[in-house]
Amino acid sequence: MIGVFDSGVGGLTVVKEIKKILPDVSIIYVGDTARLPYGNKSRETIRKYSSEIVDFLKDRDCKTIVVACNTASALAGDYLREKYPDLKIYDVVSSGAEAAVETTKKKKVGVIGTTATINSNIYNKKISDINSEIEVSVQACPLFAPLVEENWTNRPETKKIARVYLKDLKLKKIDTLLLGCTHYPLLEKTISGVMGKRTKVIASGEKMAEKLKNEKINFTRGEDQYFVSDLTEHFEKLAKKILGENIKIKKCTMF
Amino acid sequence: MIGVFDSGVGGLTVVKEIKKILPDVSIIYVGDTARLPYGNKSRETIRKYSSEIVDFLKDRDCKTIVVACNTASALAGDYLREKYPDLKIYDVVSSGAEAAVETTKKKKVGVIGTTATINSNIYNKKISDINSEIEVSVQACPLFAPLVEENWTNRPETKKIARVYLKDLKLKKIDTLLLGCTHYPLLEKTISGVMGKRTKVIASGEKMAEKLKNEKINFTRGEDQYFVSDLTEHFEKLAKKILGENIKIKKCTMF
Repeated sequence: MIGVFDSGVGGLTVVKEIKKILPDVSIIYVGDTARLPYGNKSRETIRKYSSEIVDFLKDRDCKTIVVACNTASALAGDYLREKYPDLKIYDVVSSGAEAAVETTKKKKVGVIGTTATINSNIYNKKISDINSEIEVSVQACPLFAPLVEENWTNRPETKKIARVYLKDLKLKKIDTLLLGCTHYPLLEKTISGVMGKRTKVIASGEKMAEKLKNEKINFTRGEDQYFVSDLTEHFEKLAKKILGENIKIKKCTMF
Repeated sequence: MIGVFDSGVGGLTVVKEIKKILPDVSIIYVGDTARLPYGNKSRETIRKYSSEIVDFLKDRDCKTIVVACNTASALAGDYLREKYPDLKIYDVVSSGAEAAVETTKKKKVGVIGTTATINSNIYNKKISDINSEIEVSVQACPLFAPLVEENWTNRPETKKIARVYLKDLKLKKIDTLLLGCTHYPLLEKTISGVMGKRTKVIASGEKMAEKLKNEKINFTRGEDQYFVSDLTEHFEKLAKKILGENIKIKKCTMF
């Protein structure tokens, strides 16, 4: 069992990539929809919420955990690895940073994410830990997640907002733009359109799936389970849009 | 002591109106910033969160409670009055509905709010309970609250989004538009600009303050206290923008 969690249903974009590369692996997913978004909350609160979810997954026999929320990865990733030494904990920030380093040719990378993720400076740190020659430019795009939540992914207003957010990154002549929030793959078309053909827009899900595959962990088989802390029709719709199948979502009441 | 609560800091727009009319009244405010927004959460979750906050305020000697969150008013207002018969509980939906009825001359009222508030149909019900001849048109504007949170109150992109949301309401030729979310008074200029001079844009805070004044309750004096369940620089800034004074915000850890 791999435990995957996110503040909401955005982490399902990571599940989708894992399923592509490791179709036999069983997943327990937790989306903390009762307390989302994490992007504007404090480090202390995000660590508390993340620990509660890891406890929940651990109780359900998950020995491998994927933090599929950039904010939780940024503010609680190392904290969780220290707190749970018996678990193998992967996070989307680390895999995203690796993917960006492998993709860039001009050594100019851009990263976009929530305010909390960007302000944590985690991407600058993780990327420069791998290759200090890479120039990293970052930009918070706090309205992107609400726009995805509202299904405004292909609207002209969304493109206008994207132009405002991405203006400075375009001037930096980056060749790689990392989507540092699991909601953003749903805006990939709009973001790529604004950035132009010379910038490759990448997400962390594929790299995460590759890493899990390379670890060759023996996963217990079982039924996939999808939990949210608050169940609404809205989230069910969004979840189905992402996973493109008739997934069943259950409510967990422990948080 | 009057206890006032909201999912975030938007309820401070209601506090501002109360302070104008009742400058001597002491207020304990709770903004549930660790779990906001409420607008896309279920009835069950919103009732649970609201009860926890009312317990907190009751423990601090508040005998009058103002639910300054439209979503909580809509989904938990009557529930709270039943659960706490010893408390006097006011909610912004009731006062907003009264204000709309008093304002409209053509008996055509529009109401905008979060998805949860609008889907609850509470405004149609409350307004028609007072005067069944009034035609009520509603519109969910789920991106307005995030836009306020991001301080994009006067941007051209916000005006474009407002035009999309308000298009149908304009066609209905309403003469009164009720802002059914405590964040929206910060967008009043943009919203009024889109609606045009023939529509009066009103909020519920002023009516709420009048109601409290008319009740002539003997309030205990004390220092105003402002609590949030998660304290970030972002919320402090927004709170100061709304109350326009050097308010001190404390973190409460009980939720």
